[in-house]
Amino acid sequence: MGGEPEKWILMLTARTPTNIAVIKYWGKRDETLILPINDSISVTLDPGHLCTTTTVSVSPSFDHDRMWLNGKEISLQGGRFQSCLREIRARAQDVEDKKKGIQIKKEDWQKLHLHIASYNNFPTAAGLASSAAGLACLVFSLSKLMNLKEDNSQLSAIARQGSGSACRSLYGGFVKWVMGKEDNGSDSLAIQLVDEKHWDELVIIIAVVSARQKETSSTSGMRDTVETSGLIQHRAKEVVPKRVVQMEDAIQNRDFPSFARLTCTDSNQFHAVCLDTYPPIFYMNDTSHRQVIINCVEKWNRAEGMPQVAYTFDAGPNAVMIARNRKTAALLLQRLLYNFPPQSDTDLDSYVIGDKSILKDAGIKDMKDVEALTPPPEVKDSTSLTQKSKGDVNYFICTRPGGGPVVLSDETQALLDPLTGLPK
Amino acid sequence: MGGEPEKWILMLTARTPTNIAVIKYWGKRDETLILPINDSISVTLDPGHLCTTTTVSVSPSFDHDRMWLNGKEISLQGGRFQSCLREIRARAQDVEDKKKGIQIKKEDWQKLHLHIASYNNFPTAAGLASSAAGLACLVFSLSKLMNLKEDNSQLSAIARQGSGSACRSLYGGFVKWVMGKEDNGSDSLAIQLVDEKHWDELVIIIAVVSARQKETSSTSGMRDTVETSGLIQHRAKEVVPKRVVQMEDAIQNRDFPSFARLTCTDSNQFHAVCLDTYPPIFYMNDTSHRQVIINCVEKWNRAEGMPQVAYTFDAGPNAVMIARNRKTAALLLQRLLYNFPPQSDTDLDSYVIGDKSILKDAGIKDMKDVEALTPPPEVKDSTSLTQKSKGDVNYFICTRPGGGPVVLSDETQALLDPLTGLPK
Repeated sequence: MGGEPEKWILMLTARTPTNIAVIKYWGKRDETLILPINDSISVTLDPGHLCTTTTVSVSPSFDHDRMWLNGKEISLQGGRFQSCLREIRARAQDVEDKKKGIQIKKEDWQKLHLHIASYNNFPTAAGLASSAAGLACLVFSLSKLMNLKEDNSQLSAIARQGSGSACRSLYGGFVKWVMGKEDNGSDSLAIQLVDEKHWDELVIIIAVVSARQKETSSTSGMRDTVETSGLIQHRAKEVVPKRVVQMEDAIQNRDFPSFARLTCTDSNQFHAVCLDTYPPIFYMNDTSHRQVIINCVEKWNRAEGMPQVAYTFDAGPNAVMIARNRKTAALLLQRLLYNFPPQSDTDLDSYVIGDKSILKDAGIKDMKDVEALTPPPEVKDSTSLTQKSKGDVNYFICTRPGGGPVVLSDETQALLDPLTGLPK
Repeated sequence: MGGEPEKWILMLTARTPTNIAVIKYWGKRDETLILPINDSISVTLDPGHLCTTTTVSVSPSFDHDRMWLNGKEISLQGGRFQSCLREIRARAQDVEDKKKGIQIKKEDWQKLHLHIASYNNFPTAAGLASSAAGLACLVFSLSKLMNLKEDNSQLSAIARQGSGSACRSLYGGFVKWVMGKEDNGSDSLAIQLVDEKHWDELVIIIAVVSARQKETSSTSGMRDTVETSGLIQHRAKEVVPKRVVQMEDAIQNRDFPSFARLTCTDSNQFHAVCLDTYPPIFYMNDTSHRQVIINCVEKWNRAEGMPQVAYTFDAGPNAVMIARNRKTAALLLQRLLYNFPPQSDTDLDSYVIGDKSILKDAGIKDMKDVEALTPPPEVKDSTSLTQKSKGDVNYFICTRPGGGPVVLSDETQALLDPLTGLPK
């Protein structure tokens, strides 16, 4: 870098998956460093269906750090963004791009400014952990741009400071966020338990549920729970440690009945401690619990004599269902479409998105096939339970366990213009 | 009693209140004797508004024990009825009615048969603890008929074997069910904390909520919770014992803020352990939690800076709200009627029952006054929360803390014909 402002722009684009916890994170022991009160375990979702793409760029012509989310400029002043940027800059290394003739010394990173553009390939505000994928992608892409030596696990401890569950998006497959013991959070990071190929017959169906009520943010919600619940410490200290061990075994052994039991009970216990908060926090609504859990899943699991489907709910009413294999997923989708038919003006193609082959396996090609669905055998004799809930679900996403962050070498996928460094 | 069957009938009628727990009973340590895993505390409801009336009669002409509930004959073969009848007969004493010339020796009670008629002055299956009032009334009326020497506390240990929470209906005011330590349950009984005059400014409003779903019975529900919840034992052993001490203090000192906080948090924790059960149990529905707790009560309490109203929910969606005084109750009723207006074909007089003077205090004489209600100040600026929920509440009952069981000396109130011993 010389004394004259130069025109070069160095740019990198990466894609990072979102994740859904099967053993839940709820409650911090340190609000600033985002250190949790218990370990958690998640499954990474296929980035082909749900992911964040982020382009990061640096240029001596940029005069301050700027960021755009889904095309709209947002502030980077928040403490969490600042923590991540500071931690990454502190670890930046020399960078050389011989083709472009760019050389950046590690000490230069403190003075250079960044432009960042991020895009979620799924609707925002749908309660689908966009901040997890987003912060993970920010940290991952910057680490590549700045040539950090840290591995993904060490990066996860940085992403964690942006959004707790973001640390689990640094790997594919099944991931454990180890709570750690250190006060400085250096050992509170993600490790991969198994990659996405280990248990690839699982199918994940997400019901994006209409929420009529504004929800409690998870940051303030978990703070209130830690301060007021008489049960949360017992959960964190006594219940979760045992479940984490059992869940790791279930995942290693592809033991679906144990996996399903642990996933469902841990989701329910997370919502139980929310309800035990004062004032109480309700994330699930009647659609979530009565229709999805009771009508679709629990009755079916009981009728089959063993779990076919696991369910889990994050801090919102959306249901994430994990089917043991493709065949079960097709049967689940039939049940879901029977219980939650689309509104008459909805197109089936936009009502079931993601992996459409599950729809095909379920023998459903168009709305006529949806209308022709009959009640599943397990609810046939209890007429009161077969009420259809049109409009309670906005849409379904079919997906599967997926891989971790990747750098996209195809420059046409960049979200920033390589000449201006502004959103395309 | 001679060898010839005689025609005499001895009869007695009593009335017993229902009760609602403010520190909840959930979980048994002995299923047969009905011994709980923690103490509980309840408030007795005014029997003028909610009670069971029971007529018990004995005659040498009866050839087997029979019982009618709300005019319909029911079986007495259940283990719980049999436990109560056996325990009471074992304690029966000599009885003499000089006017009628009847003499019964205590040993005769083992051979004599009973006719029993019981009537609830509130709709059955409304989830209003009818079995508590019913079993308490059965035990109380039989104890008077058979001249038992036991006091109400000792009788409560018999009623407990019929229906756990029935033991708390043997007293008025605030009542504690002491869990006891003995294996035979002899020390698991009710004691009165204060009578109904101690804190007589409280007003209780019950929202009888439409339940579209069949609920889990509390017997099987609490069994499942004890077997599967990772939180219930911590609640019973660590949380409730402290709350019971605090609740006794709050009641003694008429400390409404503490009373309200304890009542609400204990209700929420009971529903939390239900949700922590596998499969999960949901008793509250969207009407209960979103509309009643959040819209009506929590927002108001927060806006006022201190609790105006406590809420508690038993094993069903009905909301029991306890207002600190009559003035608050009138304001609460306005909020409730604003949020839950009656269906257009409903008569206001049958929509708000019990103590109608609260309706008068609220300035509501007819449906026009209900329609003229404006949103309460605390929800005025959040339009999404003011949606009205017509039809979600079947009716409201206004009542207050009330007295314990009484014998009705007015023979016209008997439910059995004094000549035939059959329902009138």
